[in-house]
Amino acid sequence: MATSHDQGSAELSLDEKTALLSGRDMWTTEPAERAGIPSLVLSDGPHGLRRQRSDSDIGLHNSRPATCFPPAVALASSWDAELIGRVGEALGREARALGVDVLLGPGVNIKRSPLCGRNFEYFSEDPLLSGVLGAAHVAGVQSQGVGASVKHFAANNQETERMRVSAEVDERALREIYLPAFERIVVQARPATVMCAYNKINGIYASESRWLLTRVLREEWGFDGLVVSDWGAVSNRVAALLAGTDLEMPGTHRDTGAEVAAAVRSGELDETVVDTAVARLRGLAERVRARSGPVTVDFDAHHRLAREVAADSLVLLKNDHQALPLAPTGRLAVIGEFATALRYQGGGSSHVNATRVDSPLEELRSLLPEAQVDFAQGYDTTGSADAGQLREEAVALAGRAGTAVLVIGLRETDESEGFDREHLNLPADQVELVRAVAQVAPRTVVVLLNGGVVSLEGWHDEVDAVVEAWLPGQAGGGAIADVLTGRVDPSGRLAETVPFRLGDTPSFLNFPGEQGHVRYGEGVMVGYRYYETADVAVHYPFGHGLSYTSFEQTGFQVTPTGPDTATVRVTVTNTGGRSGKHVAQVYVTAPKRPVSSPARELRGFAKVAVAPGESTTVEIALDRRAFAYWDISRDDWTVAAGQYEVQLADNAHDVVATAALDLAGDNLLRPLTLDSTVSEWFGHPAVGPALTAAMVSGLPEEQAAAAAEGNADAVLMLSSMAMRQFVGFLPQPIPDEVLERLMRTSESAPESAGT
Amino acid sequence: MATSHDQGSAELSLDEKTALLSGRDMWTTEPAERAGIPSLVLSDGPHGLRRQRSDSDIGLHNSRPATCFPPAVALASSWDAELIGRVGEALGREARALGVDVLLGPGVNIKRSPLCGRNFEYFSEDPLLSGVLGAAHVAGVQSQGVGASVKHFAANNQETERMRVSAEVDERALREIYLPAFERIVVQARPATVMCAYNKINGIYASESRWLLTRVLREEWGFDGLVVSDWGAVSNRVAALLAGTDLEMPGTHRDTGAEVAAAVRSGELDETVVDTAVARLRGLAERVRARSGPVTVDFDAHHRLAREVAADSLVLLKNDHQALPLAPTGRLAVIGEFATALRYQGGGSSHVNATRVDSPLEELRSLLPEAQVDFAQGYDTTGSADAGQLREEAVALAGRAGTAVLVIGLRETDESEGFDREHLNLPADQVELVRAVAQVAPRTVVVLLNGGVVSLEGWHDEVDAVVEAWLPGQAGGGAIADVLTGRVDPSGRLAETVPFRLGDTPSFLNFPGEQGHVRYGEGVMVGYRYYETADVAVHYPFGHGLSYTSFEQTGFQVTPTGPDTATVRVTVTNTGGRSGKHVAQVYVTAPKRPVSSPARELRGFAKVAVAPGESTTVEIALDRRAFAYWDISRDDWTVAAGQYEVQLADNAHDVVATAALDLAGDNLLRPLTLDSTVSEWFGHPAVGPALTAAMVSGLPEEQAAAAAEGNADAVLMLSSMAMRQFVGFLPQPIPDEVLERLMRTSESAPESAGT
Repeated sequence: MATSHDQGSAELSLDEKTALLSGRDMWTTEPAERAGIPSLVLSDGPHGLRRQRSDSDIGLHNSRPATCFPPAVALASSWDAELIGRVGEALGREARALGVDVLLGPGVNIKRSPLCGRNFEYFSEDPLLSGVLGAAHVAGVQSQGVGASVKHFAANNQETERMRVSAEVDERALREIYLPAFERIVVQARPATVMCAYNKINGIYASESRWLLTRVLREEWGFDGLVVSDWGAVSNRVAALLAGTDLEMPGTHRDTGAEVAAAVRSGELDETVVDTAVARLRGLAERVRARSGPVTVDFDAHHRLAREVAADSLVLLKNDHQALPLAPTGRLAVIGEFATALRYQGGGSSHVNATRVDSPLEELRSLLPEAQVDFAQGYDTTGSADAGQLREEAVALAGRAGTAVLVIGLRETDESEGFDREHLNLPADQVELVRAVAQVAPRTVVVLLNGGVVSLEGWHDEVDAVVEAWLPGQAGGGAIADVLTGRVDPSGRLAETVPFRLGDTPSFLNFPGEQGHVRYGEGVMVGYRYYETADVAVHYPFGHGLSYTSFEQTGFQVTPTGPDTATVRVTVTNTGGRSGKHVAQVYVTAPKRPVSSPARELRGFAKVAVAPGESTTVEIALDRRAFAYWDISRDDWTVAAGQYEVQLADNAHDVVATAALDLAGDNLLRPLTLDSTVSEWFGHPAVGPALTAAMVSGLPEEQAAAAAEGNADAVLMLSSMAMRQFVGFLPQPIPDEVLERLMRTSESAPESAGT
Repeated sequence: MATSHDQGSAELSLDEKTALLSGRDMWTTEPAERAGIPSLVLSDGPHGLRRQRSDSDIGLHNSRPATCFPPAVALASSWDAELIGRVGEALGREARALGVDVLLGPGVNIKRSPLCGRNFEYFSEDPLLSGVLGAAHVAGVQSQGVGASVKHFAANNQETERMRVSAEVDERALREIYLPAFERIVVQARPATVMCAYNKINGIYASESRWLLTRVLREEWGFDGLVVSDWGAVSNRVAALLAGTDLEMPGTHRDTGAEVAAAVRSGELDETVVDTAVARLRGLAERVRARSGPVTVDFDAHHRLAREVAADSLVLLKNDHQALPLAPTGRLAVIGEFATALRYQGGGSSHVNATRVDSPLEELRSLLPEAQVDFAQGYDTTGSADAGQLREEAVALAGRAGTAVLVIGLRETDESEGFDREHLNLPADQVELVRAVAQVAPRTVVVLLNGGVVSLEGWHDEVDAVVEAWLPGQAGGGAIADVLTGRVDPSGRLAETVPFRLGDTPSFLNFPGEQGHVRYGEGVMVGYRYYETADVAVHYPFGHGLSYTSFEQTGFQVTPTGPDTATVRVTVTNTGGRSGKHVAQVYVTAPKRPVSSPARELRGFAKVAVAPGESTTVEIALDRRAFAYWDISRDDWTVAAGQYEVQLADNAHDVVATAALDLAGDNLLRPLTLDSTVSEWFGHPAVGPALTAAMVSGLPEEQAAAAAEGNADAVLMLSSMAMRQFVGFLPQPIPDEVLERLMRTSESAPESAGT
């Protein structure tokens, strides 16, 4: 790996090389001009630049202006990779303009619990959706000659104790849930860097996990970029370097370069490990500095893009009595502090100093020139105003309006990077406000602003329409107006389940863990996989989202394209009166196999725009992975034989059409040994009957029958006993040569014999 | 340990000694007459002797007649330690009469899932109830000079793959849920032997776990008896001996004694390990052979005892419209194959060749001489009869009766040692029968016979009364008649929850595991601990059970008896018209503490008999353990400071009275180190303010204010970062001497400072 690059670094002394492997300050790397390695600039964040004015600034609120696109929670609801790719391009361009070489994002951790304070920075509870969208994001950023940093690798699914908690998670869950988004991005989008997480995985810091950073990331997935630590994630610099953490960030008062050099001198560390990391740093520099010329940014155009994306990310959860779109005339009561002071982004390292921020109220007034649009604050997020009086004013206004639009949501203090929520509730005063307004308004529409999923209990059934706007970025006000007025047809779909209660969530018992450990007790049953498998009712399922128009899906068919691949086709027709976009969702249900199976899993999707009366045929490829599980006994992806059900669905709960697909699967039958169990021996298609015959051979008929019955008892009672033990139990031992012959028989058993 | 006994064994050669450490055959040990060690006889099982006619017989159905008492599933529902002690005495007497030295029981594994095929042999989902009842059982058996064998140690909570599955269970769950019953029995009842389980625990066979068999069992709990393997549980004899498995059972064709001797000769194993195990075997022999003279058994008396116990174990789940007790006159339709062919015990190694079996039908006729008691088979468990015709006959009979009594339940093939169930359903034909009968009968009573909990869905709401009779032993027919007629007031209480659906059970996602592993993903949230904590509705809660009379509980009070102990007092008054027994149940809810807490946990109980109009005052002691959790960071039982709620409850869901108890708790505040986190430093009562002061000292006022704000940001964002790292992040490092002074300050912090 190092050979192609180490010529340059060989010119440097050991101390010069090790100095390169930790940051110079908070945001830049050490240069080695003599060896042609420049100082690189890294900067937050995933949905907008946070380029600090000072490279030693650890604070959060002193960055240069940049476009605040919708955070991942909103982006993901678009289910639109093309759109997210365009956001990535814009981010890359702003990065270049600000002199940033590596943009620290996207975050593709799985939303294991709705409580995670950083969920707003992550895409989804589903690894396929996260991976496809994350790959588009990375490709967009990197198309501008800027490196992306996919984070936080891996199993960083909470903020509580995030810097030292150990995620206790078994390999199947890692492989099927927590790693695939990273894997897809690495393989498909070739990110310049991967950022290792703070936390431990099964007791080992991610930054020190050679299994994670070298075996899986590089050897299995072929990652050829640089691994950078999350800021302060390196505990033992030498161990981290050995594991594959090339660059420690930021630079601190501690001279870890000297620690590495000392380890080389003591013989603890081979110098080639240092050379390899330096070569990767050089490779990164060559890659990102290859771009030519300065760029300018059209912030107006980026704001328009931010609006377009946000509008396509809003999810229309409910729309009774045609409450939406809003009528162009009449009286409209817009209520809520957030309607004029939009909550549009989350707190923490991703915080952007936005170039401007749209007001939902003003944008609504602009799009509804014929209507009378009045405003009441309704609630106060600072707690300084009289909630009762604000509510009374709002109710009075709503009583005079045809429709009340309430813009509510979580406050900045309710959620952020750095801590997890402890409940899913909206502020109590807002819930009370909604209930009071809904009592008097002829029609009530709620627009939700929140980075993490909130409970809809206590008010949802009282209102006519609910739009989940998430944190919609700086142009969210315009996007909300676009969707409420029907200028844009809502086409967002939930990228995470909206449960009824926290107690229903699969990680409820095990989030955020205790005493330094968090047990991933739900295994692969994350998000909708759990709700659908355990048949737990939810408020709105993963994949749900309404439209102002209507779609019909016909001609669903699944065509095998290989031993374990297929193509799905379906024709989508817009049967309504407006242009709109539809998301075709394909799920797969596995047959009985050696591991438990989620009721269904998302294996493909496509978003298509269709004009009224028009049709389009969607084609979705299902690769081998769509049918595979991670088999810990084979240490590999495995396809079980049997009949799979391929499903076209409106969401994770509502299946529209199904097709069966028979797969021969991988051969799981392994030769018998004396460690194989009684049931494996007796159940083996070729060996079982021969074994029974051997055990009764030579016995008189009556005794043989009794012995056969005894065998049946034994198989029932001692089914999982090793044959080695079982043989010792028998009144008459089976001769070794008979057992050896039977084991040989099992080696040549037909491949098709079973699972 | 060995010194007091090894004089005798020292006379034996190495080969003679190692030969003693594996069984002679299926049921007896090797003797060493010369050294005064006789051959000992071990025999199944927990609720009745299964003394095989031949010592080499591995089969299940050829034992000498013995009393089949109710299996543990029924015994536990009595919540009556005194009664179970009398059963133990009777079992011990029958063992002696049959020449048995060690009775292989009781089984005290926790019912982690209702699906476990061997649940009928286990007491409860609660460790306190299991431990108290198990200790009474052992004391009873051993009072007759026979050794008990507490099993299966430990975490043997399923039959699927039981001989090789690894229970992946964290230490807190082991300490709080899976071990305490064993611990209580070892400490309080001093069992002669403990039987190690087949399965692995966190990857290590129980038989080879030195942590389990030596550190915990002997060093912590003071066990001084013999550890015997479950039959065939020893994989590596030398490793098992080193871990503490003294005696391997049974004897097999494999000469493991020679393997042990070879290990001694090669130096792999110290001979003192062999001597210790031989000394324990000799100790067991001395203990059980100390009894004098032959005994006879009064099987009639034991049958009467079996009836008494069974009657007190039946749980009256539901009794609407005074359907029970049955009227002494009128027409009664008794329906169900089990009413004449009682299902009274489970399958597997505990199967007893009963001395006689009562028929519920005949016993009812005997107790209702004035009534007309008719019978219809109703269903057929063999599948050979016409279900429709049987149902029609039953419906016709029920239509002519005043009350229909349906005796239904699981068939022998539905549940057994050796496999787990896959669902909770009753046979479909029986459900259909109940529904059809309930349509026509004026009153319908259902008597359930089942070793594992069954679903009540689809029929429960259609009937008037439900009696859960479990598997009631050979006198169950009489006991059922006693309770149905009111000869005995029902006083059983559920020792396990009856959930609505399998999907509601806490181990649903993780039972029985896959590919050799079963993740105990629910941690300590087993049984009612889960339902109450996650607020999951159940059909009948743990502890539920009705009576024909009524009780009032008054004067509930909790009196501290020490820093973390208390006494609970309550007066129970029988306010009804019949004699009856009441179970006072005491639960405790912990305050917020470093680990998650179940909503409540059973910490004490007492069953009292009260005559009509009479009162009795119950006193229940709560020891330190009633308030403690297992702290993995301290590796010890720990009491958190705070206000505990002590609850008097009718069951795990319905609390009758509460009392607050303030405990100072253990001092959990530890001196700060550089590995302590930012939040631990800033949150420390003495150090936090001093640290903040140190960071702003010398700064101009404005900068100091900004720095303090920055600290607040840092505590939020980097709260779990080690101080060692955080110091490196600061614009100005904190001098080492300041940090050292602060760490010294934390060493002398007041004990009361917090949790």
